[in-house]
Amino acid sequence: MHTDLVAALDIGGTKIAGALVDSGGGLLLRAQRPTPPQGEGEQVMAALGEVLEELAASAMWPGVRAVGIGSAGPVDAKAGTVSPVNIPGWREYPLLQGVRERTGGLPVTLVGDGVAMAAAEHWQGAARGRTGALCMVVSTGVGGGLVLGGELHPGPSGNAGHIGHISVDLDGDSCPCGGRGCVERIASGPNIARRALDRGWRPGPDGDASAAAVAAAARDGDPVAIASFERAARALAAGIAATATLVEVEIAVLGGGVAKAGEVLFAPLRRALRDYATLSFVQGLEIVPAQMGTDAGLIGAAAACRNLGCH
Amino acid sequence: MHTDLVAALDIGGTKIAGALVDSGGGLLLRAQRPTPPQGEGEQVMAALGEVLEELAASAMWPGVRAVGIGSAGPVDAKAGTVSPVNIPGWREYPLLQGVRERTGGLPVTLVGDGVAMAAAEHWQGAARGRTGALCMVVSTGVGGGLVLGGELHPGPSGNAGHIGHISVDLDGDSCPCGGRGCVERIASGPNIARRALDRGWRPGPDGDASAAAVAAAARDGDPVAIASFERAARALAAGIAATATLVEVEIAVLGGGVAKAGEVLFAPLRRALRDYATLSFVQGLEIVPAQMGTDAGLIGAAAACRNLGCH
Repeated sequence: MHTDLVAALDIGGTKIAGALVDSGGGLLLRAQRPTPPQGEGEQVMAALGEVLEELAASAMWPGVRAVGIGSAGPVDAKAGTVSPVNIPGWREYPLLQGVRERTGGLPVTLVGDGVAMAAAEHWQGAARGRTGALCMVVSTGVGGGLVLGGELHPGPSGNAGHIGHISVDLDGDSCPCGGRGCVERIASGPNIARRALDRGWRPGPDGDASAAAVAAAARDGDPVAIASFERAARALAAGIAATATLVEVEIAVLGGGVAKAGEVLFAPLRRALRDYATLSFVQGLEIVPAQMGTDAGLIGAAAACRNLGCH
Repeated sequence: MHTDLVAALDIGGTKIAGALVDSGGGLLLRAQRPTPPQGEGEQVMAALGEVLEELAASAMWPGVRAVGIGSAGPVDAKAGTVSPVNIPGWREYPLLQGVRERTGGLPVTLVGDGVAMAAAEHWQGAARGRTGALCMVVSTGVGGGLVLGGELHPGPSGNAGHIGHISVDLDGDSCPCGGRGCVERIASGPNIARRALDRGWRPGPDGDASAAAVAAAARDGDPVAIASFERAARALAAGIAATATLVEVEIAVLGGGVAKAGEVLFAPLRRALRDYATLSFVQGLEIVPAQMGTDAGLIGAAAACRNLGCH
């Protein structure tokens, strides 16, 4: 009988996943529902409630001592609310209270999904044992989380590590966030694909115009595709170097669909890093691929809960 | 008889200052020597030794329990060495060992001068009581230090908060650090003056072509002078917003000669911040002038020593 379980929730725009996670990071039981598209707040909460009911029906449930939530952001850990960009029905939605009511008053910890990903990589992945780490997801968007002083750094609101929305080009293109020249505006998958299309790259017969297709073209030597990845790599390098220069991280871990492009991204990224990570104390910065798979969100939510004391 | 004193050292390119600092931040005794210009390593250390001897000659010295050093950077707190850009005789110079030998083996804490400034503002100045703060010096260079989770964050090497050398313009001008588009390259005093001169501003009859003279011209309505400060303000805003977005600070404290320009800098800085600090959790970020005066380096060295346990 496990007595040290965490009920982990990974809340995103397409699915709400839950699991019972043991102290070694093992996923003992899973439950999942699609996120109601364009659902009202209570409909989304009802889907989450079903996930929790399924977990609570298990004979293992009495061993659950806390709930850890990693949610699409922004979140507000202080207020216990979330306003995920891709869940329009939830605006300052009182998620913490809703989960507490449905779990008999168990302690609940809430962090952003980038923070959860960092917690997972620090617990079991590429950032294991590191004192300072930036863990990033480069995908449809660009997100991240930080480990500082050997501990997860969620920040007071649970949003720290939002590297996708720091400006590396102060006169650059407007970003949907309201900013300008954000890392995400240059380096996300859709922006890599858009830039390649704008400069004349054309998808193959299957019509696939994704960043993955641009990556394939780059591997085949297409100069426009290569250039689009190189531009993304420069923006990522400037953002990663800025982070290391500001808070001293020793490693940057990159996951997400765009990172799957492999050396098409990592080779120009490591080169560009030499142009931006110039001060002595950041020159040793390592860049490595993420090690956690699709369960990173759940394992990270559990890890964040354990690290932050599940208050 | 004080029994809880810290011997504080503030080491810069022009002077080496020392003081005995009590637990309330009072400076009980001071000593100072000019930094030997172009001096060999041992000459610089000899000047520092004189400062320490002067302090040690005091009847209060037996009450000193530790030494706190804030030094021009980069520093290497792990190795106990410093390589200040503006003290060419010290390259990976074993400062910690030298100070320990001259102070009878007292515990010594070493941090960069930006970190020390942040420690001072957090202890007694504009960042008092704050959970997350970025404290900056905008002067001949641009430096800084961070308070995170209510504690000083020096980073493993003692250099964290180096906001002057993060890139906010990835295709921008080369910076002497080897980078490109660094905050300092756009917002330091010499760069504000250079930009104004390049665009046609001319100093008055006294020939003063400093940033302070550009600030005076801006106050008198000179459009070129105003534009040069506005450009500096945009770079500072992008850097400050990046910091808040990455680690969640609630306040940015600006000191140094350029910050003395007052509203000529602060007004466009607050405006520009709205363009870069866009996410919900950073929209409340405050920008305020520093409160500590010329003793910030000494008080901060003592504060860093107390905060970090003077190991």
